[in-house]
Amino acid sequence: MLIDGLQCGHFTREVFAELRRADVGAVTVTCGFWEGTVESLDALARWRDLVAANSDLVAIATTAEEIVATAAAGRTAIVLGYQNSNLLEGRIRFVEIFAELGVRVIQLTYNNQNELGGSCYEPNDAGLARFGREVILEMNRAGILVDLSHVGNRTTLDAIECSQKPVAVTHANPDSLFQHKRNKTDDVLKALAERGGVLGCATYRNITGDHYSSSLRSWCEMVAKTVDIIGIDHVAIGTDRSHNFTKPDYDWMRMGRWTRSVDFGAGSAARPGKAPPPSWFTEVCHLGLLPGGLRVVGFAPDEVEKITSGNWLRLYSEVFASGRSAVPAKAEFVQADPVLALS
Amino acid sequence: MLIDGLQCGHFTREVFAELRRADVGAVTVTCGFWEGTVESLDALARWRDLVAANSDLVAIATTAEEIVATAAAGRTAIVLGYQNSNLLEGRIRFVEIFAELGVRVIQLTYNNQNELGGSCYEPNDAGLARFGREVILEMNRAGILVDLSHVGNRTTLDAIECSQKPVAVTHANPDSLFQHKRNKTDDVLKALAERGGVLGCATYRNITGDHYSSSLRSWCEMVAKTVDIIGIDHVAIGTDRSHNFTKPDYDWMRMGRWTRSVDFGAGSAARPGKAPPPSWFTEVCHLGLLPGGLRVVGFAPDEVEKITSGNWLRLYSEVFASGRSAVPAKAEFVQADPVLALS
Repeated sequence: MLIDGLQCGHFTREVFAELRRADVGAVTVTCGFWEGTVESLDALARWRDLVAANSDLVAIATTAEEIVATAAAGRTAIVLGYQNSNLLEGRIRFVEIFAELGVRVIQLTYNNQNELGGSCYEPNDAGLARFGREVILEMNRAGILVDLSHVGNRTTLDAIECSQKPVAVTHANPDSLFQHKRNKTDDVLKALAERGGVLGCATYRNITGDHYSSSLRSWCEMVAKTVDIIGIDHVAIGTDRSHNFTKPDYDWMRMGRWTRSVDFGAGSAARPGKAPPPSWFTEVCHLGLLPGGLRVVGFAPDEVEKITSGNWLRLYSEVFASGRSAVPAKAEFVQADPVLALS
Repeated sequence: MLIDGLQCGHFTREVFAELRRADVGAVTVTCGFWEGTVESLDALARWRDLVAANSDLVAIATTAEEIVATAAAGRTAIVLGYQNSNLLEGRIRFVEIFAELGVRVIQLTYNNQNELGGSCYEPNDAGLARFGREVILEMNRAGILVDLSHVGNRTTLDAIECSQKPVAVTHANPDSLFQHKRNKTDDVLKALAERGGVLGCATYRNITGDHYSSSLRSWCEMVAKTVDIIGIDHVAIGTDRSHNFTKPDYDWMRMGRWTRSVDFGAGSAARPGKAPPPSWFTEVCHLGLLPGGLRVVGFAPDEVEKITSGNWLRLYSEVFASGRSAVPAKAEFVQADPVLALS
């Protein structure tokens, strides 16, 4: 089975069927980019309906064990994730609440600086902010994976150091292989690996470049070079594949409500809209070609297994909690809130 | 042990200690009156902190079994409730989400008409609205008790008929014993009882009247007359006691954000602020006098047990679900939402 650390877009029954065809055992989906608490709960509710309506193909999973069991039963495990922390609306206590509702991955920032830290697209990155530090420790406690994709390099380094559990860059590539603000420099990737973290290599053409998108072999060679940089135990797959995206989707993803101007995100004026998929990955089910491609560029079977699923599973089992029981009651005394039930 | 079906206000360690002194095994607390989703989650989070900080005295309970076990361990079970449905912000799917987070009681309306139905203070009550019907069935499914206190009579009757599980009027008295908009007419109370529902008799002076507030014996006589109307299996206690309330609290409770004028709620121009507690119930721990008082007015020990805890426990065991596992996945196919993860 294969685990994809990040996809986004409009999932449909057809997409789920394609994932099954590719033997994808788990995929982290994007439940939101800019949405606040209420809209994020809406998205969670829609995902529950969508999964319930396709329960022969998919199931929501919240632990590594559930992922393994779901895949063994011939279904794809859905890991609920957000590509931003707006769902918290500044509330440290909402981390636990979203964890209880099944969320397992939260990216600290999307393309813009927020209360937690700096983004890869900001001209300056002041590093992990005070609230970001609080949220990371709370995510550690509640069993949510810290995702540092789209996060600025300085904040990324701070977050790696701050977190008491290993963290992830679920969808990016080494900047030394394809220079792009979204990609991570070698020093960042090495720090990530040293603390047990995992990088999900992306197939998204805007951050992969035309060369490594030109064939299955060339993409797998990029993975091999990434392994040369941070080691076989820290490289996995996070395609950043978006399903059924059209212009309004890209506009929302890139501009949200934050600008009246045009922003191209990972794209550019020269390629403003949808980037063409890699030549070898025109259909979602082509993901199933990856294990073979990794073998061709020289990986041994056990190495292929680590890249395609084992490294994510190891990380998930270290990070994901199994729900409410894993969230301990606070021992310290808390003063009764003066506006309890009223403000 | 004693179960109080409704209290509100600012709970503190001192209040919890008083509840223990009175052998209160469970109390439904008011987590909100007018608050929307985010503020309601804030209140939930504050309650978790408050309970965690006083875990030697209290614990949050979500099933009848948990209540019994908590009381047996010498602690008071906190049942999380809201006196309005604003926490849903119009979302049917948020019922399940709040149920998973531990909420077990939701009152359909507070003092004003809303999308669910009419309130007891409105000049006209159009009955249970379309969304109200949806929410009741969803509450039945998710294991949340429908509370019809403060709800208009016509909506109350509709809700009793609509609900597939017995419902409650957690804090009110018979209108035939003390006439007040907040109290329920005999026809409503009989319909409630016929469907297995429970009325929690209130001690709040504004809806109890001076006579039944004048002594423990007179209040217990009111309970006896209530039993004469709807039977021993349908009468319980719901004091409507508010802790540490001051003028800003009453103002919020009564005016919220809905008026620039003055509203007295259950009070009046003649008694605009806090109503004096019953003469026998000046301290919270006086609740412990109730079993004795009920014996004095002629109730047998098994009847006292029903009024003070058994009827609530029976209702709770019929209604409360034990969490996520009790919420079945929907069988019918749901079309993928066109704005999934984006709107």
